[in-house]
Amino acid sequence: MHSVGQVTPQSRHFAEPLPLQSGTSLRDYTLVYETYGTLNAARSNAVLVCHALNASHHVAGTYAGVEKSEGWWDNLIGPGKPLDTDRFFVIGVNNLGSCFGSTGPMHVNPDTGRPYGADFPVVTVEDWVDAQARLFDALGIEQLAAVIGGSLGGMQALGWSLRHPDRLRHCIAVATAPNLSAQNIAFNEVARRAIVTDPDFHGGHYQAHGVVPKRGLRVARMIGHITYLSDDAMETKFGRLTRNGSDASGERPLRYAYSTQDVEFEIESYLRYQGDKFSDYFDANTYLLITRALDYFDPARAFGGDLTTAFAQARCQFQLVSFTTDWRFSPARSREIVKALLDNRHRVSYAEIEAPHGHDAFLLDDARYHALLRACFDNISKEAGDV
Amino acid sequence: MHSVGQVTPQSRHFAEPLPLQSGTSLRDYTLVYETYGTLNAARSNAVLVCHALNASHHVAGTYAGVEKSEGWWDNLIGPGKPLDTDRFFVIGVNNLGSCFGSTGPMHVNPDTGRPYGADFPVVTVEDWVDAQARLFDALGIEQLAAVIGGSLGGMQALGWSLRHPDRLRHCIAVATAPNLSAQNIAFNEVARRAIVTDPDFHGGHYQAHGVVPKRGLRVARMIGHITYLSDDAMETKFGRLTRNGSDASGERPLRYAYSTQDVEFEIESYLRYQGDKFSDYFDANTYLLITRALDYFDPARAFGGDLTTAFAQARCQFQLVSFTTDWRFSPARSREIVKALLDNRHRVSYAEIEAPHGHDAFLLDDARYHALLRACFDNISKEAGDV
Repeated sequence: MHSVGQVTPQSRHFAEPLPLQSGTSLRDYTLVYETYGTLNAARSNAVLVCHALNASHHVAGTYAGVEKSEGWWDNLIGPGKPLDTDRFFVIGVNNLGSCFGSTGPMHVNPDTGRPYGADFPVVTVEDWVDAQARLFDALGIEQLAAVIGGSLGGMQALGWSLRHPDRLRHCIAVATAPNLSAQNIAFNEVARRAIVTDPDFHGGHYQAHGVVPKRGLRVARMIGHITYLSDDAMETKFGRLTRNGSDASGERPLRYAYSTQDVEFEIESYLRYQGDKFSDYFDANTYLLITRALDYFDPARAFGGDLTTAFAQARCQFQLVSFTTDWRFSPARSREIVKALLDNRHRVSYAEIEAPHGHDAFLLDDARYHALLRACFDNISKEAGDV
Repeated sequence: MHSVGQVTPQSRHFAEPLPLQSGTSLRDYTLVYETYGTLNAARSNAVLVCHALNASHHVAGTYAGVEKSEGWWDNLIGPGKPLDTDRFFVIGVNNLGSCFGSTGPMHVNPDTGRPYGADFPVVTVEDWVDAQARLFDALGIEQLAAVIGGSLGGMQALGWSLRHPDRLRHCIAVATAPNLSAQNIAFNEVARRAIVTDPDFHGGHYQAHGVVPKRGLRVARMIGHITYLSDDAMETKFGRLTRNGSDASGERPLRYAYSTQDVEFEIESYLRYQGDKFSDYFDANTYLLITRALDYFDPARAFGGDLTTAFAQARCQFQLVSFTTDWRFSPARSREIVKALLDNRHRVSYAEIEAPHGHDAFLLDDARYHALLRACFDNISKEAGDV
């Protein structure tokens, strides 16, 4: 079980406009992606890994000369790992509207010669799925062995099963939901307001002003981070530990610093650090676009809110996974999907993993979780006779 | 059962400095308060009502000529209501550091001749309790029949039982906690960062610049509001309803508006409205101070984290109330307090009310909740022979 080693992103340009769910289209665009492993002769062992909010196409491996450059799901993907690159040809694609290479708000709008900024069209999970499908057309891959993703990535996996039902054999959707709850949307909206009301946002055209709405991005990330962790995990890790000194025994100090603006508790320091780090690399317009893609995802919507009817068109096998302490996308939301699949007599397995880490658990290498995914991919590999 | 009618705030100035938990002191100060009902001859029927984050001394009744000016707990307090002003003399006191009359950051610092702003000293729950005790000294009330409060107000009620154990007979603490969890502090910190990083904050001395950090206040209030409501209540009230039109049947429209910055979902509209309203009347420095008072409250801290030892000094009877869907101050937090009280063989009743409204439930007139408080105050009244 080792790493896929050093990897290099690839890119492909698409000159044909992409029709979008919003009714507009993207005139032309580039997708950045990475692949690990080898496509077999039957072209039947490809697995698409879909990324969530702040991740990218860089799913596994490292970049030459860059420290700590492991891909975001490197613990899952590699030779001998649960998603075994000795057997599967794994592909990570950066979503449109992102800030990591694929065409997004920071790129030049061919209609104006200036960066898209806030004019980048609103993209949805379905749009991403369609763009990914075109990439597989270009790569000569007619059918994927599996599409896998967690959180927003799980929504894309579900989107694949509905939008291109015959182009995947397995859909593996982890820590996801059939749509966002009002509370989910509420958190997204607060984050967006923090960004949009930052005076450096300039209506989304901050690049033209040579600034970045870092204040808003920081607050947005802090809000997000709270929802990624379970209450218990945060309590275990930080509790009420204060930052300003502690006595010799390492216990909490007897006195607070008594400040309204300085860091007093460790959790504050942690959140500020996460916010600062995020604001250094993430694009504000991308944050708006991606949270909106989350808000909009709702496959039941076109069927009067009936998720069972929505999933009638699916053809693949499903594996759903949720985590007991995930309060962002709780197990109850995964069970809604499982019910809709069972109503349709689709083949579905469902695992509710007892893990303390909240929503973040889908990125961690919990033993039971990874054993489950390993078994899942073993089966996929065997039934396809890919090895 | 009717209203206490029209009421008028009173105020009292205290020339003697108030020593604060932070080690500094407040040179002199004014407390604004309201009273309802009549103090009996024995001066034994006084009930203090403590307010939470954005409320004030205006607990019940209305102001002459002001529409919709009912006090924030008017459904509980009045002639014939659960806290019956025909039997009890009820007092609401505005906390120090507030923006509703008692000395706070918007007032002039006698040391500089300019508004306190960010220089207003950090005040704690214990400081508020001490200031309230001085008011009762001035009013000639040696012992309160009860102190009642919800949320941060409940912390003050608990603070009374510990700081002035012989000056109250009953402590009624609703929807509260023995301290904030890491997650609670995290939400407070994000709200504070939104305020402090608003360019109009000017380090807390925005009054001197003739501006108000409204952007930060709006975001802070939106975050707070999410934590006041249960996930289910938000889902029931708003769900995924969109704002821009609906078909004739009133069902959700088939198309989204597809915008990253405009309101799309009803929950967004609701949160923005709450944020706007709040930013029109609430003071930013007060928000920082009051969230810090919440962060700092931790009676077990001086006893090595042992809540049982902390409550050894209490003398009064306790009534604890929590609400099943309150995820901000969950029933588990109230049970920690109940356990510490039982460990000390204190007299305590505890009610876990099944209510769908989350933390906000403590302000609503849920039938079982109000019946419980009615019975509680009936007993207090009878045992004291106050009627």
